[in-house]
Amino acid sequence: MAPSFVTNGGVAAVKTTPFAGRLASVYSEVQTSRIDHALPVPSVLRSPFKIVDGPASSAAGNPDEIAKLFPNLFGQPSSMLVPNGIDSIGSDQKLKIGVVLSGGQAPGGHNVICGIFDYLQERAPGSTLYGFRGGPAGVMKGKYVELTADYIYPYRNQGGFDMICSGRDKIETPEQFKQAEETAAKLDLDGLVVIGGDDSNTNACLLAENFRSKNLKTRVIGCPKTIDGDLKCKEVPTSFGFDTACKIYAEMIGNVMIDARSTGKYYHFVRLMGRAASHITLECALQTHPNITIIGEEVAAKKLTLKNVTDYMVDVICKRAELGYNYGVILIPEGLIDFIPEVAKIETEKMLIQMVETELEKRKQEGSYKANFKGQSHFFGYEGRCGLPTNFDASYCYALGYGAGALLHSGKTGLISSVGNLCAPVEEWTVGGTALTSMMDVERRHGKLKPVIKKAMVELDGAPFKKFASLREEWAIKNCYISPGPIQFAGPASNAVNHTLLLELGAQA
Amino acid sequence: MAPSFVTNGGVAAVKTTPFAGRLASVYSEVQTSRIDHALPVPSVLRSPFKIVDGPASSAAGNPDEIAKLFPNLFGQPSSMLVPNGIDSIGSDQKLKIGVVLSGGQAPGGHNVICGIFDYLQERAPGSTLYGFRGGPAGVMKGKYVELTADYIYPYRNQGGFDMICSGRDKIETPEQFKQAEETAAKLDLDGLVVIGGDDSNTNACLLAENFRSKNLKTRVIGCPKTIDGDLKCKEVPTSFGFDTACKIYAEMIGNVMIDARSTGKYYHFVRLMGRAASHITLECALQTHPNITIIGEEVAAKKLTLKNVTDYMVDVICKRAELGYNYGVILIPEGLIDFIPEVAKIETEKMLIQMVETELEKRKQEGSYKANFKGQSHFFGYEGRCGLPTNFDASYCYALGYGAGALLHSGKTGLISSVGNLCAPVEEWTVGGTALTSMMDVERRHGKLKPVIKKAMVELDGAPFKKFASLREEWAIKNCYISPGPIQFAGPASNAVNHTLLLELGAQA
Repeated sequence: MAPSFVTNGGVAAVKTTPFAGRLASVYSEVQTSRIDHALPVPSVLRSPFKIVDGPASSAAGNPDEIAKLFPNLFGQPSSMLVPNGIDSIGSDQKLKIGVVLSGGQAPGGHNVICGIFDYLQERAPGSTLYGFRGGPAGVMKGKYVELTADYIYPYRNQGGFDMICSGRDKIETPEQFKQAEETAAKLDLDGLVVIGGDDSNTNACLLAENFRSKNLKTRVIGCPKTIDGDLKCKEVPTSFGFDTACKIYAEMIGNVMIDARSTGKYYHFVRLMGRAASHITLECALQTHPNITIIGEEVAAKKLTLKNVTDYMVDVICKRAELGYNYGVILIPEGLIDFIPEVAKIETEKMLIQMVETELEKRKQEGSYKANFKGQSHFFGYEGRCGLPTNFDASYCYALGYGAGALLHSGKTGLISSVGNLCAPVEEWTVGGTALTSMMDVERRHGKLKPVIKKAMVELDGAPFKKFASLREEWAIKNCYISPGPIQFAGPASNAVNHTLLLELGAQA
Repeated sequence: MAPSFVTNGGVAAVKTTPFAGRLASVYSEVQTSRIDHALPVPSVLRSPFKIVDGPASSAAGNPDEIAKLFPNLFGQPSSMLVPNGIDSIGSDQKLKIGVVLSGGQAPGGHNVICGIFDYLQERAPGSTLYGFRGGPAGVMKGKYVELTADYIYPYRNQGGFDMICSGRDKIETPEQFKQAEETAAKLDLDGLVVIGGDDSNTNACLLAENFRSKNLKTRVIGCPKTIDGDLKCKEVPTSFGFDTACKIYAEMIGNVMIDARSTGKYYHFVRLMGRAASHITLECALQTHPNITIIGEEVAAKKLTLKNVTDYMVDVICKRAELGYNYGVILIPEGLIDFIPEVAKIETEKMLIQMVETELEKRKQEGSYKANFKGQSHFFGYEGRCGLPTNFDASYCYALGYGAGALLHSGKTGLISSVGNLCAPVEEWTVGGTALTSMMDVERRHGKLKPVIKKAMVELDGAPFKKFASLREEWAIKNCYISPGPIQFAGPASNAVNHTLLLELGAQA
């Protein structure tokens, strides 16, 4: 039963509070309206279904080494949910499932949990869902909470990870596996869903292998989470949270662009969150058309120095000055510091403003630049990790969770929940699981071969970068700014898919 | 005729471009959907109306001095538009009107211009509207553009000031008045609408007095613009742009709050734009319930030092640490530097993080604080000045502009366009004009008495501050965060009025 809400000056407050935290808090009108939002789901999830396996899988690289590291799991097929006359999964089995959030927040995490919960309610009644608190440490220390309908209700379609919180600990050493085993045994867990990024999913697979090697019944399914967008492959077209975070940053960038054009006197240097890979920066560029965008992967591929990057910026600024434009917007990926060795862990956007100032001063003395330069620095980061999930992320996450429930129910382990056909209407999305080992390669660390899911970097011959590269000269000189505006939950643009996904899937088709 | 739009992958591009700039650019789906949004307007503007004058006015202070400074305008009544059998304004007169944007951007400025334009089209057909480019300098230098239906169409309900751009020059010296006179004569102007803040409206009134004293026909009407919210009085309940800017900042603050609660390890210090007055900070606090909010006016009234402010923050941080909360959100008004003499023009939020760190280190050594403190700094400013105007600001600005047209048409000068009853549905809003001299007082500057519209500061005995003060202790210790979410243009919360306005008008009633 859902807790009752009391309307209070446009704000609804949860009245009955089985637990402290968000439930004791008050909700804005928009948050409240999202809780009961009727989420579209893939049509396969609305009917009876069965699970169909594909052919045996291999690995992203060094299959022989991956086979040695995962003797029990290597070669597993991917699975797909397909409509069926009757539900043929797990019969009347009641399940005990745990779920854990790992690493940085991404909009939609709560909906993954809601999807698992609803699967169990609808297709394995009498089952129990445990939420491990504070990330993987909760698994190892046995810190958990039983997730009930009342408990999860206020988190439906809401941002943040505060339902059970997250953490950055890892389960990867033999001692840590032992602790996880103890918790699994104590709770009699049939399955565990690990919601995390590349490292967390690698560790989820190692844990699955460990459980399987010991003939323990606990199975492990991963879910692709990161706003950075660097966990993806053919069968996992995107990680959740990327869509929402990019749209939040793009709203802000679009506003700053209109400010720049209206004021006519500032260059805005915007650094965007997103660690090593520049996906967020590329997506925001495609959404907003800034004058200058630095893509870390291109800087690395072309072995550009800080001086090269500065000169590129200064060249554009000088060209624009000749046209009478003494303003602009420049996007800088957080990960730039990984690609330019001379850049320390500092605020890149401020350092670049100084470099550009110095170089422009030189050109002024040479007579090749006559205008005035004023830089404004921005960092868009935390604002985007916890926003209300877009309609896309809300449905995507719910399907990931619901699918994870089905995979566990059917006895699968070592798969990552995968939802595909994402550019089509939600009803047509596919739901299934991909062998985690098929996404892996090995890396030598401290002399030992370690399995890794390689971070998906921006591909310089991929459709999104190529589209960007074909337009950036025009964007540099002309003012082609687009202002996406705030995320809408109803009406125009509310169901739009991000450009990267659209282009990548379009290119694959 | 409106230019035709071409749909292009979810993005609509303006095809015919009578002028460069925004028209040559492309629009996002949300921007496009706003252009043709059917704007609700006060019902009085949908019928024939007449203008009714109130009693003679005085001044906000020193009426004798104001009377001396404005011999032709002092004592003017305020005016109100009231429904009438037939339009009784200005008969068949064709008007030549100029409009100018003055100072920093505020969401809705374009709609003021659209309101003036539509008034002229509907009630004084054959009239001409000139837009002065680049702010008051455009008036003095005679830089203008004729605003046609095609020209203004793409700016309807859009953010920014880029239709004609703004500037920070002033028209206040005899030489500058002379230049303005020449432009007015050259264009045969019947009227000029000055869209600006307190200084710009003061100067608009001086210009009106100057024109009147020389028996020139050009009349001047002001419009209350500033996101800072510090231009208001009984008859001008708010300045436009405040609503949108606060909602944009509150969205970001709400996201950061959920991030803080989910991560559990950061204190976010958020500095908010808004110059001297702390209205934006107060409104954002009422919308989001942060743990600590500094109101500049309170700091001034209580003569608090930087050490006092730091200690207050540290006390709350220590109390929260005892409760197990090592995270939080702290709002700091940009104008704090005006109230604490020892604070130089630096990034206040970063300095406060350092001060708090130092003090906490001390308390750690004394044993009264045992947790770890990590500060994250934010400045929310430019992102808010140019957002797409909320439904409130879009309608408010349109009514301000439409009303300004009516005031000029009826021969009024030296008034500020004023729209009231703003907490009621738009249809019930009142439209009229308030004597600018009635908002004035004098200040002695360089030994001379100068007329000023005093900045409306946060009143410590006003309803918004009192509500905040009554709740802040609870907000400090408990986590009562509210996340307003992104601005919606349709559906829940899309027509909400900001808390400050609601409380202030409620208190006046």
